[in-house]
Amino acid sequence: MKAGRTATAPTELGHIVSGDTNALFAYVVGLADDALVLGHRLSEWSGQGPLLEEDIALSNLALDLIGQARLLYAYAGEVEGKGRDEDALSFRRDEHAFANLLLVEQPNGDFAATMVRQLIYAAFMHPFFQALAKSRDARLAEIGAKAEKEMAYHLRHAAEWVIRLGDGTDESHGRAAAALEELWTYIGELFAMADTETALVAAGIAVDRAMIKPKWEATIDRVLREATLARPADGWMQTGGRAGRHSEHLGHLLAEMQVLNRAHPGAVW
Amino acid sequence: MKAGRTATAPTELGHIVSGDTNALFAYVVGLADDALVLGHRLSEWSGQGPLLEEDIALSNLALDLIGQARLLYAYAGEVEGKGRDEDALSFRRDEHAFANLLLVEQPNGDFAATMVRQLIYAAFMHPFFQALAKSRDARLAEIGAKAEKEMAYHLRHAAEWVIRLGDGTDESHGRAAAALEELWTYIGELFAMADTETALVAAGIAVDRAMIKPKWEATIDRVLREATLARPADGWMQTGGRAGRHSEHLGHLLAEMQVLNRAHPGAVW
Repeated sequence: MKAGRTATAPTELGHIVSGDTNALFAYVVGLADDALVLGHRLSEWSGQGPLLEEDIALSNLALDLIGQARLLYAYAGEVEGKGRDEDALSFRRDEHAFANLLLVEQPNGDFAATMVRQLIYAAFMHPFFQALAKSRDARLAEIGAKAEKEMAYHLRHAAEWVIRLGDGTDESHGRAAAALEELWTYIGELFAMADTETALVAAGIAVDRAMIKPKWEATIDRVLREATLARPADGWMQTGGRAGRHSEHLGHLLAEMQVLNRAHPGAVW
Repeated sequence: MKAGRTATAPTELGHIVSGDTNALFAYVVGLADDALVLGHRLSEWSGQGPLLEEDIALSNLALDLIGQARLLYAYAGEVEGKGRDEDALSFRRDEHAFANLLLVEQPNGDFAATMVRQLIYAAFMHPFFQALAKSRDARLAEIGAKAEKEMAYHLRHAAEWVIRLGDGTDESHGRAAAALEELWTYIGELFAMADTETALVAAGIAVDRAMIKPKWEATIDRVLREATLARPADGWMQTGGRAGRHSEHLGHLLAEMQVLNRAHPGAVW
């Protein structure tokens, strides 16, 4: 911990909340899983973007997210105290142990779907990390301060594309509208909080997702208006990601991502 | 062109050499193709590296190379003067128009093969771009100065891995040795120069590949010694890449890379 920080040590905070560090571990791993899975999805575009410049941009977004995941996994491993490092937590956990939002595991679809998914995520995570930067947990505060800057760029990039596609040709508008309609069923999970997360909020460690919702709404409404896209109705919402109940897509993603490390755990060979 | 540079304008240099700009265009496009194809190969590792840290490193190497390709294609397009931009040159040229070295289009193979290929390439391109930074062509000099720094990192990264693998377990040593043996047949092209390239060297624009060879040899010998890997004999060498005669691997790579842009040329939709 940096000199001059007044934050309490994480282990101590964990005890305040739950008598052990499980709540904090689960919270940090969930955030790490979100970043890793979405980063992996974006990296699937590598070398296949629609334009050379956008190919590079998508790779950079992926790198930001995988970098955030590394920091979060490393911290989660310390909190857990069982010697699991970032590779153990990312490559050697099973599908049902992954606690990511269902939103981020959805397939890339076309470029419009990728950008709408990115808008929905970044419009939430930018103010989320801004708030996390004020966490009483010094490590989470540091990660939040770094990630907030990255997500500001992700949000700007995704918003520009959604506006360009929505306010573009009939085809690009239609594709963006269809993606929005389909992905809208995944927004509910952004605002859901487990009891342990609520306890961490009360302790000044975690971010209250209900407080982020109005900022997310304002951003989404502004972008959709400029994009001439109608906001879908809030109907039935998908849930289960945080509890490890995933769509079939996550299994395929993890199989591809984990195969090499699992074949040679802890080393290249 | 930056103030104070004494370099001649590129079009004028092209005329000095060949009466038109074809020689310079071909030279720059060949360098761009090398960087793009290898960058695409490395990006195929995205999300599938053996370790989370290495996954990020490979993505960064890919981004450097694709960034170099962008600069080179943009300049080639200007030299050509027919309105082809970086996307036209990367996404809408056919396999036989690609002039990259056969080395860079070879499949990734295992991690050892990827790192040996990277070592062979970076050990040449690092001193190559150092020399290009002194080109009389100001744009090539600028690109060389930027790329030289990047290739210094690529070389260090690849050398560290080849040493670690070669001087590692029996399995990692065997894999590195096999990769070296197989890829050695592609080194001949590194040193070959077309007549037009020789003319550009005489004009102070291009780099004399024969002058780079001793530096490449010294680097390779040092790394292989530390890696306890035997240097293969210089036997029969593969050729043809610069003339557009490629292995079947390039066609597959280009098909994957170009499909989206060709479906919607010049725009997303």
